[in-house]
Amino acid sequence: MAGDGGYGSRSQFEAEVRWRFPTANEYSSWSMTPLDKMVGNLTASGLHFERHHGGIPTIDPSTHMLFVHGKVDAPRKFSMVDLKRFPSVTRKHFIECSGNGLTEWNKPTLKTVQGTHGLLSTSEWTGVPFATIAREVGLHEDGAWVLAEGSDAAVMTRSIPLQKMLKDAILAYGQNGEAIRPEQGYPLRLILPGYEGNMHIKWLRRLEVGDQPFMTREETSKYTDLLANGKARQFTFEMEAKSVITFPSGEMKLPGAGFYSITGLAWSGRGRVQSVDVSTDAGKTWYPAHLESVPEPICTIRFSFPWAWDGTPAVLQSRCTDETGYIQPTLAQLIAIRGSNGPFGSIYHLNAIQSWGVDADGGVTNVHA
Amino acid sequence: MAGDGGYGSRSQFEAEVRWRFPTANEYSSWSMTPLDKMVGNLTASGLHFERHHGGIPTIDPSTHMLFVHGKVDAPRKFSMVDLKRFPSVTRKHFIECSGNGLTEWNKPTLKTVQGTHGLLSTSEWTGVPFATIAREVGLHEDGAWVLAEGSDAAVMTRSIPLQKMLKDAILAYGQNGEAIRPEQGYPLRLILPGYEGNMHIKWLRRLEVGDQPFMTREETSKYTDLLANGKARQFTFEMEAKSVITFPSGEMKLPGAGFYSITGLAWSGRGRVQSVDVSTDAGKTWYPAHLESVPEPICTIRFSFPWAWDGTPAVLQSRCTDETGYIQPTLAQLIAIRGSNGPFGSIYHLNAIQSWGVDADGGVTNVHA
Repeated sequence: MAGDGGYGSRSQFEAEVRWRFPTANEYSSWSMTPLDKMVGNLTASGLHFERHHGGIPTIDPSTHMLFVHGKVDAPRKFSMVDLKRFPSVTRKHFIECSGNGLTEWNKPTLKTVQGTHGLLSTSEWTGVPFATIAREVGLHEDGAWVLAEGSDAAVMTRSIPLQKMLKDAILAYGQNGEAIRPEQGYPLRLILPGYEGNMHIKWLRRLEVGDQPFMTREETSKYTDLLANGKARQFTFEMEAKSVITFPSGEMKLPGAGFYSITGLAWSGRGRVQSVDVSTDAGKTWYPAHLESVPEPICTIRFSFPWAWDGTPAVLQSRCTDETGYIQPTLAQLIAIRGSNGPFGSIYHLNAIQSWGVDADGGVTNVHA
Repeated sequence: MAGDGGYGSRSQFEAEVRWRFPTANEYSSWSMTPLDKMVGNLTASGLHFERHHGGIPTIDPSTHMLFVHGKVDAPRKFSMVDLKRFPSVTRKHFIECSGNGLTEWNKPTLKTVQGTHGLLSTSEWTGVPFATIAREVGLHEDGAWVLAEGSDAAVMTRSIPLQKMLKDAILAYGQNGEAIRPEQGYPLRLILPGYEGNMHIKWLRRLEVGDQPFMTREETSKYTDLLANGKARQFTFEMEAKSVITFPSGEMKLPGAGFYSITGLAWSGRGRVQSVDVSTDAGKTWYPAHLESVPEPICTIRFSFPWAWDGTPAVLQSRCTDETGYIQPTLAQLIAIRGSNGPFGSIYHLNAIQSWGVDADGGVTNVHA
């Protein structure tokens, strides 16, 4: 009687895995969530996307410490036991790597939605609000930015506005009801709701309060957006509204004309998803999709749309509007503002409408339309 | 670089398991969620409680069928592919076995909260509303009850009011974003929000619409509540409001006087949790606890309460009020109405206030107070 007691595992008939991008090595790797195989809003913990800049450290939680210092009254080291004695908060949020879709600016390159959008996952996170820790250490009046540092071989560091840290940052030790997974930062990860994934520092060991940004590698030579005029956008933290159809999607094959329930995910780093529209004619006409649960702030939501396919070629698109009124742009609209510089275009923060072409045989492919 | 790509697992430093009750055999077993080790609202899929009446069948989803028949216009078998072509819904709900705490009516018997309350877990469930399938097959006017049947060796069967099935029953194939786990009914489980766990039929293979309850073994000789006068309550479906403190809880030891964040879970089968009160003096005085997220219907919610322990003996209690105004009773109030018959008392539906005694040394024990 496998699975009776102990710690359970999935069925022998389920085989989805995260797809490790072929360029991966020990210095840089990413592995993508199989969005085409997933249901609901959450991501199974074992399939949460990964982006590593220096592998996954093995950390004994009984010796791990978080050092909070800089412009504070009482610098202090917190053990995991210390942190768990504070009241916790629990919030369901997506994390999206700002490099999600980075090869897709100029032409379709990846075949499946796991490739084009799989650096996106959603979990229930539990931990201590940074605001609680800030009260413990006492902030100086001139504090304005916080450096967060990870324990990985890359010593990942990013600067975060203090205002954001105090608003909703969580020092998270829990993911989906249990300890955070090793590849997600065990035993402690910074959760910055709605900000680009890179800033959610994993294996968090240090927070330094300063009066200006620290200008680390990952916010100067990396994670900036090179515009058409040669200047770069910097500190582009928030992930803007985005959506994608996960069924049908690239490499699938529809068995024939008839009824299909189109489904996908929508999300926004600025708040709740307000509505999602679906088009089956490459954006000429749009219809409102059905949201399959109640929108939560800075969280993916599944939508669906009933489609009677007549067997002729079609182009499927979805478009997200968030509660700020922001409407997900077309790729052409995005390129008009952002250009398409860099080795793969402007690389980060591609939130354009995704198109899936359906041919007369039912084959589905990644297209620009 | 373990965990980079593929399907992830938890840290080598995390060892919580479901506790298999010592009487378990191949005909009857239960394994309890370690509530004392969990954080947030969700239960990690690998730690969701189990209650089996005939083990866990291994089912190939490519051949599994759901037969819907009885008082319907067009009886039909649905494959898993068929079911997944319908629009889905996603809802976060707890499931609680109505036998949770069954040995606790007359005296404290189990030492930890895993023992006393561990037949409770929460997941995000995804599937097809029964109402959608009902429209497909067409219901007869005189349909009033539905028999649900599982594929396990026990051929678990229960009768469910058709009204409940049409209101919010889900034929679920998804749990926490992936396929439902084997021990939770892979590939298909009936989810009946707020009803006793036994009725959420696992490995679902048959739904028969009838005009009266089917009077199966599990709703006549079992899963009824023997009252003091010798009569039994039958069809006691809804799980009433309940709560429990998970920290501090039985077998823990507080290191000394000082500040502690008391925390626990509250839930109701009738809707949202409205409020939770905490007492540190065995119910003489009550204070409102803080809810750590936004209450969702028929879902656990984590609460917390700041406690400055002075080092003298204390009795900790929590009390849930749900949105219907129902207040979780004391054990004495419950026994006054329900009696304490049967081998362990009246067995099912024990939702009384739980007491944890804290002695001067900081030791925490299960007490009746």
